[in-house]
Amino acid sequence: MSSAASPATPLTPAVIFENVQSFQRTFALKAAIELDIFRAIGEGAGDVASIARHARASERGTRILCDFLVVAGLLEKADGHYRHTPASAAFLDPASPGCIASIVKFLTMPEVRQSYECLADVVRNGRTALPGQGSVEPENPIWVEFAQSMAPMMAPMAGPLGGIVLQGRTGPMRVLDIACGHGLFGIEIAKQNPQAHVTGLDWAPVLRVALDNAKKAGVQDRYDMLPGSAFEVEFAGPYDAVLLTNFLHHFNPDTCIELLKKIHAALKPEGCVATLEFVPNEDRVSPAMPAAFAMTMLTSTESGDAYPFSELSDMHRRAGFEDITSHPVPMSPHTVVLAKA
Amino acid sequence: MSSAASPATPLTPAVIFENVQSFQRTFALKAAIELDIFRAIGEGAGDVASIARHARASERGTRILCDFLVVAGLLEKADGHYRHTPASAAFLDPASPGCIASIVKFLTMPEVRQSYECLADVVRNGRTALPGQGSVEPENPIWVEFAQSMAPMMAPMAGPLGGIVLQGRTGPMRVLDIACGHGLFGIEIAKQNPQAHVTGLDWAPVLRVALDNAKKAGVQDRYDMLPGSAFEVEFAGPYDAVLLTNFLHHFNPDTCIELLKKIHAALKPEGCVATLEFVPNEDRVSPAMPAAFAMTMLTSTESGDAYPFSELSDMHRRAGFEDITSHPVPMSPHTVVLAKA
Repeated sequence: MSSAASPATPLTPAVIFENVQSFQRTFALKAAIELDIFRAIGEGAGDVASIARHARASERGTRILCDFLVVAGLLEKADGHYRHTPASAAFLDPASPGCIASIVKFLTMPEVRQSYECLADVVRNGRTALPGQGSVEPENPIWVEFAQSMAPMMAPMAGPLGGIVLQGRTGPMRVLDIACGHGLFGIEIAKQNPQAHVTGLDWAPVLRVALDNAKKAGVQDRYDMLPGSAFEVEFAGPYDAVLLTNFLHHFNPDTCIELLKKIHAALKPEGCVATLEFVPNEDRVSPAMPAAFAMTMLTSTESGDAYPFSELSDMHRRAGFEDITSHPVPMSPHTVVLAKA
Repeated sequence: MSSAASPATPLTPAVIFENVQSFQRTFALKAAIELDIFRAIGEGAGDVASIARHARASERGTRILCDFLVVAGLLEKADGHYRHTPASAAFLDPASPGCIASIVKFLTMPEVRQSYECLADVVRNGRTALPGQGSVEPENPIWVEFAQSMAPMMAPMAGPLGGIVLQGRTGPMRVLDIACGHGLFGIEIAKQNPQAHVTGLDWAPVLRVALDNAKKAGVQDRYDMLPGSAFEVEFAGPYDAVLLTNFLHHFNPDTCIELLKKIHAALKPEGCVATLEFVPNEDRVSPAMPAAFAMTMLTSTESGDAYPFSELSDMHRRAGFEDITSHPVPMSPHTVVLAKA
């Protein structure tokens, strides 16, 4: 602590000012994507006039936006010309196969931002300002948008998750993908094991997105759909593996245990459950991304959380699982928790 | 650039995800201030239950908010207990004389945030989405809120600004403080030189805030008020010095030159103008705070900007000033540009 007050790092209110103004970054990135700025720069437009022409925007607005993106670490500038950073080239240029620009659409939806406008009340009440169960209210249409917008961000995790679940296993197997959303995780299992049969479970409108993706991947013949709530539908096992991705964080531990017990009962004796989660360290304040994710759960759910491994492990154990192991997914804020029935 | 793709710093979308989610930081800080969390921690509440009791808030909400503030660099956490960082102790705890928590109120006003909801359109059109002249529309009531909320952030700059303008000068002098707002800069001149007489110019409702501050400082006998627009009222010189603080950035260069000419005409032959501004480097992307301020001008004005020194210097020269020098204000994102008539 004392070092922050030393002459080398003078005490200024910069960190406060920057946090107050942080909302500007969200909207600057959103505007740049809407104006197709990252494509323009990828295609070689480097000066303000060229970028503005590509974006059909004013030069004043374009210059100030691009300069702001440089300050935000989302572009580089040299000799008055803008160019991609490695990250903006890989993840924001629509010409890149890894482009995740679509996540902005879901993450800035009015339904997603609403609770922040009254965040003090949310903290007082300890639950989302959204009605009912918040984001997990039955048939909430935001999950169709999630399945469409967030798929590019989740796609790079599918390969590692598939590897962790299969561990080279071939031959016939049945896999249940709970709250499958875009379906990419289950589809990846079907791609890695040509004899795997996958059942995607989610609300019916969401499953249409998953089926589209299964068709694109050419695995639709081995892809079944189970529409409804994970808490209510009959799982119709037994399965060799159950995928439980980005789901437990929406619920409190008792509800998670209840679901894990239902999963345990639907697994074969040698089966496993693979839980993909934001898993902060036990201090709950590191690493930044999984730790900060708890705020998303506070604002969007009644009692969800970003659980440290000790708590996830405990939930699994109470549901009857054993051999519970943690597998951080490289290059991502996610962790796979693997447990045996 | 290439280093960002090296094994030491793997290429991940973290910077994109963090920028998309940045709006959460603004609202988390705002909520923490509204819930008086920083006072609670200053008074010794360190565990979730104690802070929640002080804030009259749920423990779930309090824990997740406090953990988020740690991730945002606004609190520290050790052994499950929260404590101030040096910056939060100095600038966010209401018990600190340097507390600037009130800036959040102005900087998150709906009028201030409105243009961000349609930022792509703002960039297309090259001007604020606010009607008319935006934030500088005549008699805009936001400036009363500014004068009240932003004073604590500006206060530490008053001393250095006074020193730069006076340079030890004593004896009778007349000073005009244009768009004085809270009035702190002119009041500081009156405090540093007991024979200085200050005229504060601003919209009448704003001047009431300045007069209150002049009374608090005990200099109201040497404080006059000139209500109206800097572009329209008669300055009634001649003055020894004119303060032009946080004002030029709202206008385009031609308008700035017009005003500087009017100021030049109101100065004594040996007089000076002291312009306090966010002055980015010539690259317009550093340092971060003054460079990013251009976005605030894009979203709130018709044609304002954060001008590099070369441009401010040129405006002053065209208005008839000479000996134009730059004086960065220590510990702040501001610079004083001093010029002689």
